[in-house]
Amino acid sequence: MRAWRLLRKLGNERLHFQDWRMNCWAIYLATKRQRRWLTRRIWKCIVQKGDTVVDATCGNGHDTLALLKMVGDGSGRGSVYGMDIQNCALESTSTLIKESIDPNEVQLVKLFNLCHSSMEEIVPKGTLVRLVAFNLGYLPGGDKSIITLPEKTLHALDAARRLLGPEGLISIMVYVGHPGGREEYAAVQAFASQLPGEEWVCCKFEMVNRPAAPVLFLLFRK
Amino acid sequence: MRAWRLLRKLGNERLHFQDWRMNCWAIYLATKRQRRWLTRRIWKCIVQKGDTVVDATCGNGHDTLALLKMVGDGSGRGSVYGMDIQNCALESTSTLIKESIDPNEVQLVKLFNLCHSSMEEIVPKGTLVRLVAFNLGYLPGGDKSIITLPEKTLHALDAARRLLGPEGLISIMVYVGHPGGREEYAAVQAFASQLPGEEWVCCKFEMVNRPAAPVLFLLFRK
Repeated sequence: MRAWRLLRKLGNERLHFQDWRMNCWAIYLATKRQRRWLTRRIWKCIVQKGDTVVDATCGNGHDTLALLKMVGDGSGRGSVYGMDIQNCALESTSTLIKESIDPNEVQLVKLFNLCHSSMEEIVPKGTLVRLVAFNLGYLPGGDKSIITLPEKTLHALDAARRLLGPEGLISIMVYVGHPGGREEYAAVQAFASQLPGEEWVCCKFEMVNRPAAPVLFLLFRK
Repeated sequence: MRAWRLLRKLGNERLHFQDWRMNCWAIYLATKRQRRWLTRRIWKCIVQKGDTVVDATCGNGHDTLALLKMVGDGSGRGSVYGMDIQNCALESTSTLIKESIDPNEVQLVKLFNLCHSSMEEIVPKGTLVRLVAFNLGYLPGGDKSIITLPEKTLHALDAARRLLGPEGLISIMVYVGHPGGREEYAAVQAFASQLPGEEWVCCKFEMVNRPAAPVLFLLFRK
Protein backbone atom coordinates (compact mmCIF):
# COMPACT_ATOMS: atom_id res chain seq x y z
CA MET A 1 0.00 0.00 0.00
CA ARG A 2 2.53 2.54 -1.16
CA ALA A 3 -0.08 5.27 -1.57
CA TRP A 4 -1.06 4.96 2.07
CA ARG A 5 2.53 5.02 3.22
CA LEU A 6 2.98 8.27 1.34
CA LEU A 7 -0.10 9.74 2.98
CA ARG A 8 1.12 8.74 6.40
CA LYS A 9 4.48 10.33 5.73
CA LEU A 10 2.68 13.54 4.96
CA GLY A 11 1.08 13.42 8.38
CA ASN A 12 -2.43 12.87 7.05
CA GLU A 13 -3.27 10.21 9.61
CA ARG A 14 -6.81 11.53 9.98
CA LEU A 15 -7.60 11.39 6.29
CA HIS A 16 -6.03 7.95 6.13
CA PHE A 17 -8.26 6.64 8.88
CA GLN A 18 -11.40 8.23 7.43
CA ASP A 19 -10.72 6.64 4.11
CA TRP A 20 -10.43 3.17 5.62
CA ARG A 21 -13.73 3.79 7.35
CA MET A 22 -15.48 4.85 4.13
CA ASN A 23 -14.05 1.85 2.38
CA CYS A 24 -15.41 -0.48 4.99
CA TRP A 25 -18.87 1.01 5.12
CA ALA A 26 -19.10 0.79 1.38
CA ILE A 27 -18.25 -2.88 1.52
CA TYR A 28 -21.26 -3.48 3.68
CA LEU A 29 -23.55 -2.32 0.87
CA ALA A 30 -25.97 -1.15 3.53
CA THR A 31 -27.69 1.65 1.63
CA LYS A 32 -28.51 2.37 -2.00
CA ARG A 33 -26.02 5.24 -2.04
CA GLN A 34 -23.23 3.03 -0.65
CA ARG A 35 -24.03 0.26 -3.13
CA ARG A 36 -23.83 2.71 -6.02
CA TRP A 37 -20.56 4.14 -4.65
CA LEU A 38 -19.01 0.69 -4.28
CA THR A 39 -20.00 -0.59 -7.74
CA ARG A 40 -18.64 2.55 -9.40
CA ARG A 41 -15.44 2.27 -7.41
CA ILE A 42 -15.04 -1.26 -8.72
CA TRP A 43 -15.81 -0.17 -12.31
CA LYS A 44 -13.12 2.48 -11.99
CA CYS A 45 -10.59 -0.28 -11.31
CA ILE A 46 -11.38 -1.78 -14.69
CA VAL A 47 -12.41 1.01 -17.06
CA GLN A 48 -9.76 3.19 -18.66
CA LYS A 49 -10.01 6.37 -20.71
CA GLY A 50 -10.92 5.58 -24.32
CA ASP A 51 -12.61 2.24 -23.51
CA THR A 52 -15.88 0.97 -24.94
CA VAL A 53 -18.49 0.10 -22.30
CA VAL A 54 -22.14 -0.96 -22.33
CA ASP A 55 -24.92 0.13 -19.98
CA ALA A 56 -27.37 -2.71 -20.59
CA THR A 57 -30.16 -1.10 -18.54
CA CYS A 58 -29.97 2.71 -18.63
CA GLY A 59 -32.82 3.33 -16.16
CA ASN A 60 -32.64 6.98 -15.11
CA GLY A 61 -29.16 7.34 -16.62
CA HIS A 62 -27.04 7.80 -13.49
CA ASP A 63 -24.79 4.85 -14.33
CA THR A 64 -24.63 5.84 -18.02
CA LEU A 65 -23.38 9.27 -16.95
CA ALA A 66 -20.84 7.78 -14.51
CA LEU A 67 -19.53 5.47 -17.26
CA LEU A 68 -19.27 8.36 -19.72
CA LYS A 69 -17.09 10.26 -17.25
CA MET A 70 -14.85 7.18 -16.92
CA VAL A 71 -14.21 6.68 -20.64
CA GLY A 72 -14.14 10.29 -21.91
CA ASP A 73 -10.78 12.06 -21.90
CA GLY A 74 -11.64 15.15 -23.98
CA SER A 75 -10.01 13.75 -27.13
CA GLY A 76 -13.15 12.12 -28.58
CA ARG A 77 -12.06 8.57 -27.72
CA GLY A 78 -14.25 6.22 -25.70
CA SER A 79 -17.80 4.94 -26.25
CA VAL A 80 -20.79 4.20 -24.06
CA TYR A 81 -23.54 2.09 -25.64
CA GLY A 82 -26.69 2.47 -23.56
CA MET A 83 -30.02 0.74 -24.01
CA ASP A 84 -33.39 0.41 -22.34
CA ILE A 85 -36.68 -1.15 -23.36
CA GLN A 86 -38.59 1.89 -22.04
CA ASN A 87 -38.57 5.13 -24.01
CA CYS A 88 -39.10 7.24 -20.88
CA ALA A 89 -35.87 5.79 -19.40
CA LEU A 90 -33.91 6.82 -22.50
CA GLU A 91 -35.41 10.32 -22.36
CA SER A 92 -34.36 10.69 -18.69
CA THR A 93 -30.87 9.41 -19.54
CA SER A 94 -30.50 11.75 -22.50
CA THR A 95 -31.67 14.79 -20.47
CA LEU A 96 -29.35 13.96 -17.57
CA ILE A 97 -26.34 13.59 -19.87
CA LYS A 98 -27.02 16.81 -21.80
CA GLU A 99 -27.35 18.70 -18.52
CA SER A 100 -24.18 17.28 -16.99
CA ILE A 101 -21.61 16.89 -19.73
CA ASP A 102 -19.67 19.08 -22.13
CA PRO A 103 -21.46 18.99 -25.57
CA ASN A 104 -18.30 17.53 -27.16
CA GLU A 105 -18.49 14.50 -24.87
CA VAL A 106 -22.22 13.87 -25.39
CA GLN A 107 -21.53 12.29 -28.78
CA LEU A 108 -19.59 9.47 -27.07
CA VAL A 109 -22.93 8.07 -25.83
CA LYS A 110 -25.18 6.11 -28.16
CA LEU A 111 -28.64 5.36 -26.77
CA PHE A 112 -30.97 2.69 -28.17
CA ASN A 113 -34.57 1.73 -27.45
CA LEU A 114 -33.76 -1.97 -27.34
CA CYS A 115 -33.91 -4.99 -25.05
CA HIS A 116 -30.55 -5.76 -23.37
CA SER A 117 -30.58 -9.18 -25.06
CA SER A 118 -30.00 -7.37 -28.40
CA MET A 119 -26.79 -5.59 -27.40
CA GLU A 120 -24.76 -7.35 -30.10
CA GLU A 121 -26.83 -5.54 -32.75
CA ILE A 122 -25.52 -2.13 -31.72
CA VAL A 123 -21.91 -2.67 -30.64
CA PRO A 124 -19.74 -2.64 -33.82
CA LYS A 125 -18.34 -6.10 -34.68
CA GLY A 126 -14.82 -6.73 -33.41
CA THR A 127 -15.02 -4.10 -30.64
CA LEU A 128 -13.61 -5.36 -27.35
CA VAL A 129 -15.91 -4.16 -24.58
CA ARG A 130 -14.33 -3.42 -21.18
CA LEU A 131 -17.45 -3.36 -19.03
CA VAL A 132 -21.09 -4.39 -19.32
CA ALA A 133 -23.27 -3.07 -16.48
CA PHE A 134 -26.69 -4.47 -15.59
CA ASN A 135 -29.21 -3.13 -13.08
CA LEU A 136 -31.94 -5.74 -13.13
CA GLY A 137 -35.55 -5.28 -11.97
CA TYR A 138 -37.87 -2.36 -12.70
CA LEU A 139 -37.25 1.30 -13.52
CA PRO A 140 -37.00 3.30 -10.26
CA GLY A 141 -40.00 5.65 -10.14
CA GLY A 142 -41.48 3.97 -13.26
CA ASP A 143 -44.05 1.26 -13.98
CA LYS A 144 -43.23 -1.58 -11.58
CA SER A 145 -44.99 -4.13 -13.78
CA ILE A 146 -42.33 -3.66 -16.51
CA ILE A 147 -39.39 -5.76 -15.31
CA THR A 148 -36.37 -7.45 -16.84
CA LEU A 149 -37.12 -11.15 -17.40
CA PRO A 150 -34.86 -14.16 -16.67
CA GLU A 151 -34.90 -15.54 -20.20
CA LYS A 152 -34.01 -12.23 -21.85
CA THR A 153 -31.42 -11.52 -19.14
CA LEU A 154 -29.74 -14.88 -19.80
CA HIS A 155 -29.54 -13.99 -23.52
CA ALA A 156 -28.10 -10.59 -22.57
CA LEU A 157 -25.50 -12.12 -20.23
CA ASP A 158 -24.43 -14.52 -22.95
CA ALA A 159 -24.11 -11.63 -25.41
CA ALA A 160 -22.08 -9.68 -22.82
CA ARG A 161 -19.80 -12.70 -22.38
CA ARG A 162 -19.13 -12.78 -26.14
CA LEU A 163 -18.51 -9.01 -26.38
CA LEU A 164 -16.20 -8.72 -23.38
CA GLY A 165 -12.45 -8.37 -23.92
CA PRO A 166 -9.74 -9.74 -21.57
CA GLU A 167 -9.58 -8.02 -18.17
CA GLY A 168 -13.17 -6.91 -18.68
CA LEU A 169 -16.03 -7.01 -16.21
CA ILE A 170 -19.72 -7.89 -16.28
CA SER A 171 -21.31 -6.14 -13.27
CA ILE A 172 -24.84 -7.19 -12.33
CA MET A 173 -26.94 -5.68 -9.54
CA VAL A 174 -29.91 -8.01 -9.08
CA TYR A 175 -32.98 -6.69 -7.27
CA VAL A 176 -34.85 -9.52 -5.62
CA GLY A 177 -37.62 -7.81 -3.63
CA HIS A 178 -40.24 -7.59 -6.43
CA PRO A 179 -42.32 -10.45 -7.92
CA GLY A 180 -40.05 -12.27 -10.38
CA GLY A 181 -36.88 -10.99 -8.71
CA ARG A 182 -35.94 -14.32 -7.12
CA GLU A 183 -36.33 -16.17 -10.44
CA GLU A 184 -34.03 -13.66 -12.13
CA TYR A 185 -31.51 -14.00 -9.28
CA ALA A 186 -31.53 -17.80 -9.76
CA ALA A 187 -30.90 -17.36 -13.50
CA VAL A 188 -27.91 -15.02 -12.92
CA GLN A 189 -26.51 -17.36 -10.25
CA ALA A 190 -26.78 -20.33 -12.66
CA PHE A 191 -25.11 -18.33 -15.46
CA ALA A 192 -22.22 -17.18 -13.22
CA SER A 193 -21.69 -20.64 -11.69
CA GLN A 194 -21.06 -22.31 -15.05
CA LEU A 195 -18.38 -19.88 -16.29
CA PRO A 196 -15.02 -21.75 -16.32
CA GLY A 197 -12.74 -20.84 -13.41
CA GLU A 198 -9.65 -20.79 -15.65
CA GLU A 199 -11.06 -17.85 -17.60
CA TRP A 200 -13.46 -16.14 -15.19
CA VAL A 201 -13.44 -14.95 -11.57
CA CYS A 202 -17.10 -14.72 -10.50
CA CYS A 203 -18.02 -13.37 -7.11
CA LYS A 204 -21.13 -12.30 -5.29
CA PHE A 205 -21.84 -9.84 -2.46
CA GLU A 206 -24.98 -10.42 -0.47
CA MET A 207 -26.72 -9.07 2.65
CA VAL A 208 -27.48 -12.15 4.71
CA ASN A 209 -29.99 -10.72 7.19
CA ARG A 210 -31.88 -8.57 4.65
CA PRO A 211 -33.25 -11.08 2.14
CA ALA A 212 -34.91 -8.36 0.00
CA ALA A 213 -31.66 -6.38 -0.45
CA PRO A 214 -30.13 -6.46 -3.95
CA VAL A 215 -27.24 -8.81 -4.70
CA LEU A 216 -24.12 -7.75 -6.61
CA PHE A 217 -22.46 -10.20 -9.01
CA LEU A 218 -19.04 -9.38 -10.51
CA LEU A 219 -17.92 -11.57 -13.41
CA PHE A 220 -14.32 -10.71 -14.26
CA ARG A 221 -12.70 -12.11 -17.40
CA LYS A 222 -9.03 -12.93 -16.80
CA MET B 1 -12.50 10.74 -1.36
CA ARG B 2 -10.44 13.55 0.08
CA ALA B 3 -7.35 11.37 0.49
CA TRP B 4 -7.38 10.54 -3.21
CA ARG B 5 -7.83 14.16 -4.19
CA LEU B 6 -4.77 14.99 -2.13
CA LEU B 7 -2.79 12.24 -3.83
CA ARG B 8 -3.82 13.46 -7.25
CA LYS B 9 -2.80 17.00 -6.37
CA LEU B 10 0.62 15.66 -5.49
CA GLY B 11 0.90 14.25 -9.00
CA ASN B 12 0.86 10.64 -7.85
CA GLU B 13 -1.54 9.51 -10.54
CA ARG B 14 0.33 6.26 -10.98
CA LEU B 15 0.18 5.29 -7.33
CA HIS B 16 -3.45 6.30 -7.29
CA PHE B 17 -4.28 3.99 -10.17
CA GLN B 18 -2.26 1.09 -8.79
CA ASP B 19 -4.09 1.36 -5.52
CA TRP B 20 -7.49 1.14 -7.20
CA ARG B 21 -6.27 -1.93 -9.02
CA MET B 22 -5.07 -3.61 -5.82
CA ASN B 23 -8.30 -2.77 -4.14
CA CYS B 24 -10.29 -4.36 -6.88
CA TRP B 25 -8.24 -7.52 -7.10
CA ALA B 26 -8.57 -7.93 -3.38
CA ILE B 27 -12.32 -7.70 -3.65
CA TYR B 28 -12.29 -10.71 -5.94
CA LEU B 29 -10.86 -12.84 -3.14
CA ALA B 30 -9.22 -14.93 -5.82
CA THR B 31 -6.22 -16.21 -3.85
CA LYS B 32 -5.46 -17.00 -0.23
CA ARG B 33 -3.08 -14.06 -0.01
CA GLN B 34 -5.68 -11.67 -1.40
CA ARG B 35 -8.35 -13.01 0.95
CA ARG B 36 -6.06 -12.48 3.93
CA TRP B 37 -5.17 -8.97 2.73
CA LEU B 38 -8.83 -8.03 2.28
CA THR B 39 -10.00 -9.36 5.64
CA ARG B 40 -7.20 -7.54 7.46
CA ARG B 41 -7.96 -4.36 5.56
CA ILE B 42 -11.56 -4.62 6.77
CA TRP B 43 -10.45 -5.33 10.36
CA LYS B 44 -8.31 -2.21 10.25
CA CYS B 45 -11.46 -0.16 9.55
CA ILE B 46 -12.89 -1.34 12.83
CA VAL B 47 -10.04 -1.97 15.28
CA GLN B 48 -8.41 0.96 17.05
CA LYS B 49 -5.30 1.20 19.22
CA GLY B 50 -6.04 0.02 22.76
CA ASP B 51 -9.00 -2.19 21.76
CA THR B 52 -9.73 -5.68 23.04
CA VAL B 53 -10.04 -8.29 20.28
CA VAL B 54 -10.46 -12.07 20.14
CA ASP B 55 -8.83 -14.53 17.75
CA ALA B 56 -11.21 -17.47 18.17
CA THR B 57 -9.06 -19.85 16.09
CA CYS B 58 -5.35 -19.00 16.33
CA GLY B 59 -4.17 -21.60 13.81
CA ASN B 60 -0.59 -20.76 12.89
CA GLY B 61 -0.87 -17.33 14.52
CA HIS B 62 -0.69 -15.04 11.48
CA ASP B 63 -4.01 -13.36 12.29
CA THR B 64 -3.19 -13.17 16.01
CA LEU B 65 0.00 -11.31 15.12
CA ALA B 66 -1.82 -8.98 12.71
CA LEU B 67 -4.41 -8.20 15.41
CA LEU B 68 -1.69 -7.53 17.99
CA LYS B 69 -0.13 -4.96 15.66
CA MET B 70 -3.53 -3.28 15.29
CA VAL B 71 -4.26 -2.88 19.02
CA GLY B 72 -0.75 -2.25 20.43
CA ASP B 73 0.39 1.38 20.60
CA GLY B 74 3.52 0.99 22.76
CA SER B 75 1.75 2.23 25.91
CA GLY B 76 0.66 -1.19 27.19
CA ARG B 77 -3.00 -0.71 26.23
CA GLY B 78 -4.88 -3.19 24.04
CA SER B 79 -5.52 -6.94 24.41
CA VAL B 80 -5.66 -9.92 22.12
CA TYR B 81 -7.31 -13.06 23.52
CA GLY B 82 -6.31 -16.01 21.37
CA MET B 83 -7.47 -19.60 21.63
CA ASP B 84 -7.15 -22.90 19.85
CA ILE B 85 -8.15 -26.44 20.70
CA GLN B 86 -4.78 -27.76 19.44
CA ASN B 87 -1.65 -27.22 21.53
CA CYS B 88 0.62 -27.28 18.47
CA ALA B 89 -1.32 -24.31 17.04
CA LEU B 90 -0.75 -22.32 20.23
CA GLU B 91 2.96 -23.17 20.18
CA SER B 92 3.27 -21.95 16.57
CA THR B 93 1.37 -18.76 17.47
CA SER B 94 3.50 -18.11 20.54
CA THR B 95 6.75 -18.64 18.60
CA LEU B 96 5.63 -16.40 15.75
CA ILE B 97 4.68 -13.59 18.11
CA LYS B 98 7.90 -13.77 20.15
CA GLU B 99 9.93 -13.64 16.93
CA SER B 100 8.01 -10.73 15.43
CA ILE B 101 7.09 -8.35 18.24
CA ASP B 102 8.84 -6.15 20.80
CA PRO B 103 8.96 -8.06 24.17
CA ASN B 104 6.91 -5.28 25.80
CA GLU B 105 4.05 -5.90 23.40
CA VAL B 106 4.08 -9.70 23.78
CA GLN B 107 2.28 -9.40 27.12
CA LEU B 108 -0.79 -7.95 25.36
CA VAL B 109 -1.54 -11.41 23.96
CA LYS B 110 -3.13 -14.06 26.14
CA LEU B 111 -3.24 -17.54 24.62
CA PHE B 112 -5.50 -20.36 25.84
CA ASN B 113 -5.81 -24.03 24.97
CA LEU B 114 -9.59 -23.86 24.73
CA CYS B 115 -12.46 -24.44 22.34
CA HIS B 116 -13.75 -21.22 20.74
CA SER B 117 -17.16 -21.90 22.29
CA SER B 118 -15.59 -21.14 25.72
CA MET B 119 -14.35 -17.63 24.90
CA GLU B 120 -16.52 -16.05 27.58
CA GLU B 121 -14.47 -17.88 30.24
CA ILE B 122 -11.31 -15.95 29.36
CA VAL B 123 -12.44 -12.45 28.40
CA PRO B 124 -12.90 -10.44 31.64
CA LYS B 125 -16.55 -9.70 32.44
CA GLY B 126 -17.76 -6.29 31.24
CA THR B 127 -15.05 -5.93 28.57
CA LEU B 128 -16.42 -4.62 25.27
CA VAL B 129 -14.76 -6.58 22.47
CA ARG B 130 -14.22 -4.76 19.14
CA LEU B 131 -13.53 -7.75 16.90
CA VAL B 132 -13.90 -11.52 17.04
CA ALA B 133 -12.14 -13.33 14.19
CA PHE B 134 -12.91 -16.89 13.12
CA ASN B 135 -11.09 -19.05 10.59
CA LEU B 136 -13.17 -22.21 10.46
CA GLY B 137 -12.05 -25.62 9.22
CA TYR B 138 -8.79 -27.43 9.98
CA LEU B 139 -5.32 -26.22 10.96
CA PRO B 140 -3.29 -25.50 7.79
CA GLY B 141 -0.47 -28.03 7.67
CA GLY B 142 -1.95 -29.90 10.65
CA ASP B 143 -4.19 -32.94 11.21
CA LYS B 144 -7.05 -32.54 8.71
CA SER B 145 -9.34 -34.77 10.78
CA ILE B 146 -9.42 -32.18 13.59
CA ILE B 147 -11.95 -29.60 12.41
CA THR B 148 -14.20 -26.98 13.97
CA LEU B 149 -17.73 -28.38 14.38
CA PRO B 150 -21.05 -26.65 13.60
CA GLU B 151 -22.54 -27.06 17.09
CA LYS B 152 -19.46 -25.66 18.88
CA THR B 153 -19.13 -22.90 16.27
CA LEU B 154 -22.75 -21.85 16.86
CA HIS B 155 -22.04 -21.63 20.61
CA ALA B 156 -18.90 -19.61 19.84
CA LEU B 157 -20.78 -17.22 17.53
CA ASP B 158 -23.42 -16.69 20.18
CA ALA B 159 -20.71 -15.96 22.76
CA ALA B 160 -19.06 -13.53 20.32
CA ARG B 161 -22.43 -11.80 19.83
CA ARG B 162 -22.73 -11.29 23.60
CA LEU B 163 -19.14 -10.04 24.02
CA LEU B 164 -19.16 -7.61 21.09
CA GLY B 165 -19.47 -3.88 21.78
CA PRO B 166 -21.22 -1.36 19.48
CA GLU B 167 -19.46 -0.79 16.15
CA GLY B 168 -17.75 -4.14 16.58
CA LEU B 169 -17.29 -6.87 14.00
CA ILE B 170 -17.51 -10.66 13.92
CA SER B 171 -15.42 -11.81 10.93
CA ILE B 172 -15.82 -15.43 9.83
CA MET B 173 -13.87 -17.13 7.04
CA VAL B 174 -15.64 -20.44 6.40
CA TYR B 175 -13.74 -23.16 4.54
CA VAL B 176 -16.16 -25.44 2.73
CA GLY B 177 -13.94 -27.80 0.72
CA HIS B 178 -13.34 -30.43 3.44
CA PRO B 179 -15.85 -33.03 4.78
CA GLY B 180 -18.11 -31.20 7.25
CA GLY B 181 -17.34 -27.80 5.70
CA ARG B 182 -20.74 -27.40 4.01
CA GLU B 183 -22.59 -28.20 7.26
CA GLU B 184 -20.57 -25.59 9.11
CA TYR B 185 -21.27 -23.06 6.33
CA ALA B 186 -25.02 -23.75 6.67
CA ALA B 187 -24.80 -23.19 10.44
CA VAL B 188 -23.00 -19.84 10.04
CA GLN B 189 -25.46 -18.76 7.33
CA ALA B 190 -28.41 -19.62 9.61
CA PHE B 191 -26.83 -17.73 12.54
CA ALA B 192 -26.12 -14.62 10.45
CA SER B 193 -29.57 -14.64 8.81
CA GLN B 194 -31.44 -14.42 12.10
CA LEU B 195 -29.55 -11.42 13.53
CA PRO B 196 -31.96 -8.44 13.59
CA GLY B 197 -31.39 -5.93 10.80
CA GLU B 198 -31.94 -2.97 13.13
CA GLU B 199 -28.86 -3.92 15.14
CA TRP B 200 -26.68 -5.89 12.72
CA VAL B 201 -25.42 -5.53 9.15
CA CYS B 202 -24.53 -9.05 7.98
CA CYS B 203 -22.94 -9.60 4.60
CA LYS B 204 -21.28 -12.42 2.71
CA PHE B 205 -18.65 -12.58 -0.05
CA GLU B 206 -18.63 -15.72 -2.14
CA MET B 207 -16.90 -17.07 -5.26
CA VAL B 208 -19.74 -18.29 -7.45
CA ASN B 209 -17.82 -20.42 -9.96
CA ARG B 210 -15.45 -22.00 -7.40
CA PRO B 211 -17.75 -23.88 -5.02
CA ALA B 212 -14.85 -25.10 -2.84
CA ALA B 213 -13.48 -21.58 -2.22
CA PRO B 214 -13.92 -20.21 1.33
CA VAL B 215 -16.76 -17.80 2.08
CA LEU B 216 -16.33 -14.61 4.12
CA PHE B 217 -19.10 -13.49 6.48
CA LEU B 218 -18.93 -10.04 8.11
CA LEU B 219 -21.36 -9.42 10.97
CA PHE B 220 -21.15 -5.77 11.97
CA ARG B 221 -22.93 -4.52 15.09
CA LYS B 222 -24.36 -1.03 14.58
